[in-house]
Amino acid sequence: LSELWKEWKRVAVKAMEMGRTDPRKIIFSAKMGLALMLISLLIFFKEPVEELSRYSVWAILTVVVVFEFSIGATLSKGFNRGLGTLSAGGLALGMAELCQLAGDWEEVVIVAGIFITGFFITYAKQYPAMKPYEYGFRVFLITYCFIMVSGYHTREFIQTAVSRFLLIALGAGVSLAVNICVYPIWAGEDLHNLVAKNFISVATSLEGCISEYLNCVEYKRIPSKILTYQAADNPVYNGYRSAVESTSQEEALVAFAIWEPPHGPYKMIRYPWKNYVKVSGALRYCAFMVMALHGCILSEIQAPAERRQVFRKELQRVSTAGAKVLREIGEKVKKMEKLGSMDILYEVHEAAEALQKKVDQKSYLFVNSENWEIGTRATVVDTPQEPGSLDDDRNSFLHHRSHSETVINIDSILNSKSWDNRTCNLSSNNQAAGLTPQNTVEKPKFRTTHSLPKDNEALKEVEEEEDDKVEVSKTYESASALSLATFTSLLIEFVARLQNVVDSFEELSEKAKFKEAVDLSEAS
Amino acid sequence: LSELWKEWKRVAVKAMEMGRTDPRKIIFSAKMGLALMLISLLIFFKEPVEELSRYSVWAILTVVVVFEFSIGATLSKGFNRGLGTLSAGGLALGMAELCQLAGDWEEVVIVAGIFITGFFITYAKQYPAMKPYEYGFRVFLITYCFIMVSGYHTREFIQTAVSRFLLIALGAGVSLAVNICVYPIWAGEDLHNLVAKNFISVATSLEGCISEYLNCVEYKRIPSKILTYQAADNPVYNGYRSAVESTSQEEALVAFAIWEPPHGPYKMIRYPWKNYVKVSGALRYCAFMVMALHGCILSEIQAPAERRQVFRKELQRVSTAGAKVLREIGEKVKKMEKLGSMDILYEVHEAAEALQKKVDQKSYLFVNSENWEIGTRATVVDTPQEPGSLDDDRNSFLHHRSHSETVINIDSILNSKSWDNRTCNLSSNNQAAGLTPQNTVEKPKFRTTHSLPKDNEALKEVEEEEDDKVEVSKTYESASALSLATFTSLLIEFVARLQNVVDSFEELSEKAKFKEAVDLSEAS
Repeated sequence: LSELWKEWKRVAVKAMEMGRTDPRKIIFSAKMGLALMLISLLIFFKEPVEELSRYSVWAILTVVVVFEFSIGATLSKGFNRGLGTLSAGGLALGMAELCQLAGDWEEVVIVAGIFITGFFITYAKQYPAMKPYEYGFRVFLITYCFIMVSGYHTREFIQTAVSRFLLIALGAGVSLAVNICVYPIWAGEDLHNLVAKNFISVATSLEGCISEYLNCVEYKRIPSKILTYQAADNPVYNGYRSAVESTSQEEALVAFAIWEPPHGPYKMIRYPWKNYVKVSGALRYCAFMVMALHGCILSEIQAPAERRQVFRKELQRVSTAGAKVLREIGEKVKKMEKLGSMDILYEVHEAAEALQKKVDQKSYLFVNSENWEIGTRATVVDTPQEPGSLDDDRNSFLHHRSHSETVINIDSILNSKSWDNRTCNLSSNNQAAGLTPQNTVEKPKFRTTHSLPKDNEALKEVEEEEDDKVEVSKTYESASALSLATFTSLLIEFVARLQNVVDSFEELSEKAKFKEAVDLSEAS
Repeated sequence: LSELWKEWKRVAVKAMEMGRTDPRKIIFSAKMGLALMLISLLIFFKEPVEELSRYSVWAILTVVVVFEFSIGATLSKGFNRGLGTLSAGGLALGMAELCQLAGDWEEVVIVAGIFITGFFITYAKQYPAMKPYEYGFRVFLITYCFIMVSGYHTREFIQTAVSRFLLIALGAGVSLAVNICVYPIWAGEDLHNLVAKNFISVATSLEGCISEYLNCVEYKRIPSKILTYQAADNPVYNGYRSAVESTSQEEALVAFAIWEPPHGPYKMIRYPWKNYVKVSGALRYCAFMVMALHGCILSEIQAPAERRQVFRKELQRVSTAGAKVLREIGEKVKKMEKLGSMDILYEVHEAAEALQKKVDQKSYLFVNSENWEIGTRATVVDTPQEPGSLDDDRNSFLHHRSHSETVINIDSILNSKSWDNRTCNLSSNNQAAGLTPQNTVEKPKFRTTHSLPKDNEALKEVEEEEDDKVEVSKTYESASALSLATFTSLLIEFVARLQNVVDSFEELSEKAKFKEAVDLSEAS
């Protein structure tokens, strides 16, 4: 029993928490209570009219069904309900006339009519373009059947139809009045905030991703929730996931928002709500890149920590600049401001170019020359890996210069290990604290080309064993280096996709007539 | 008017089409008509009971509201409705007693009660864990208010409550009977098929992606719908998008499926429907990689066509094997078969390893040596790009061997152009028809190392100009080569993620007790 009490307390605390984080939920509940109270008061007061109390259920039902969280939803449901009732009422009255003409066959005609109407209305509501009016079709069916059945008993088809319609109108009227007059909650505003929030989460996710990458965060065990794309506790993951997953929420909100009259800052008939969804879609397109970046962190194949540090400064810069752009646009969406005259992407493009240049200069870090078909050690000539292929001419070329220092030189230049250490020295001033210190130990500046490097010799020995495992591990090594290349490429692609976001934001800001940007110097 | 007629005809054709592609929609409509007909018949026949006709609306309403496409949805709504009505009825009867005790304050107590109930019920239904019962809360409110209001008039609280409940039970009973007995439509089956279908679409998308990549399909203008992640006409895009976007559909279906009793091939209490969603989530995690692969095709930065051909065979093999694995698992999901004793991933892992090896051997294709800080032409020594950095020792090293053939040799070996052409020759037998034929023209086998290649000279001239644009274009060139590395890495990561899909499929097949796989030799 004390368990039950504890459970109860836990739920109560959580429920309180819910109200604290979003007080609109409390307000909405109070509004609902108020609307119900009003409608029952109306029915009490109008007691003398017998009709009213008899059909009072319609008014109550309408209030409960139509009263939705946002005004757009309430309007759309109210409209659906009204239209459904009216048209069904019309059809039912027509059918009633027809039935009376049918004489003895009246019951048959009524029942057949109900079947046919049920069939066609249900079929029509499954038509994709009719989805927003699904509720209207339901109401249509209810009204039609109700008027036919109860009219048949009372023979008061018209009265039934009219009183039902009036009571529904009364219920809808009360709902709307309460919902609009008391602390209105607009779906459009929710959509607006959702889109702005998505920008912030993607920006945070991007920064988190790159800092995890540079700090070589390793997931000991990747949460299986991430692997099956379910909600998980990882903040980086949640950032982009929420942006990606908001599609259906946005769709629902935009469907309601277009019902809402001009209000607050959205003073415009036919406000371009769809453009908000478009902006969010363009952002999502960026978020997929962040997701792919995060995939590099989650992947089994990881670039060695030292090599990542080589690009630390540049990656960091792109990350900061990219996140800044996203935050800035998010802020502008929120404040409904146009972009300033300055190119918002300037800094991030510069940063990406710097990264690209660095990549260009250091791309030898991405590749292991050891396995190249060209320029490999002379041993290749003795035991060609791919006999039968068109290697002959190449081999003869290699033969020609085999054992010459040239080939060895390529090896030693490209030999990644030695270069790692060197470049780490170079970039040690950029290294964050907490990284393995052995990289910063002074090493011999460069090898003489005449002595084969130690690990090459080791490799030779290993090669003689011709073990499968070694091959795999070598392959893995090179994949691991390429993983860094992938990470940078994806990041650059991310930057490229920002253009897209800016474009769709500009379209939105034009169409929605955002205010001109305040000069930055003034603003700061 | 003829326009209107045309429009009408267009809609009619489309509506017919809808019925043809999914005949269940027609059947569902007919079932709905049947249920409505039955309920109105019942009400007609029982005419003598005045109560029934008076409250007939409840039965009709219940049928229209509860009768849903799938049985799970019908059951869940029916349960919600029943529970909501029962508990609200209980509360209302209790309140009615209380009100009568209140004497003169009766009206006040009633109205206050309605407000308080409205408030708490509305608040509770916003509690996230209560979302599946949202409809139940609505029904609770309607019932409570209705009994209070109409009971106040007629003083027949109990009778109102009981007759309402009976009629709702009648409506729900008719709905359920018709829905289950006549051509049942199960949400679980839909979920099952949806998951199996997702496998096929991702497989198709993967194949399409790689063949587009190898055939160097270029989008002249990327549809802005893809850029803003909206539904578009691109088949590759639609493949993975439908798998990614099915989240909400799956969630809805699983919520209904758990309501369904054991049936057909799902003979099991507590059937693990959630594991279908998990498998689909793991597949989605793969689909994100396909999406990233497609991103490489849509990207502005494109790898040169010739270099792609180098990897044609390997990419093709991974694509075929990967798609085969997906199709096979999709098929197994559909047939509810366990995986065989053979390692389903063997072939695709082999293919990925072959690709990785090739990448390893040819990784010089991913990089442009021209811009390397090491091994660049002697000109670097004259105009060091990064003065002030720790280049000194390197430069002295380069100086030492400047103008020697060694450095030139690196250049000519690594100079990508010449190698492109060569490797294209090598792989020309793999090339599909329809590719640019110029690549297959015989070229000089290899340059002599003493003559600087032509385009290096050209580059030299250009370098002298020291134009910003050139730098950009060079940077672009190297990025374009790296894009190929990215593509292959992403593909390999895709293969790595397949393990995940297999694992979650195995979990599903265990939990759902799939039948043992038929031996392949027997099956074929």
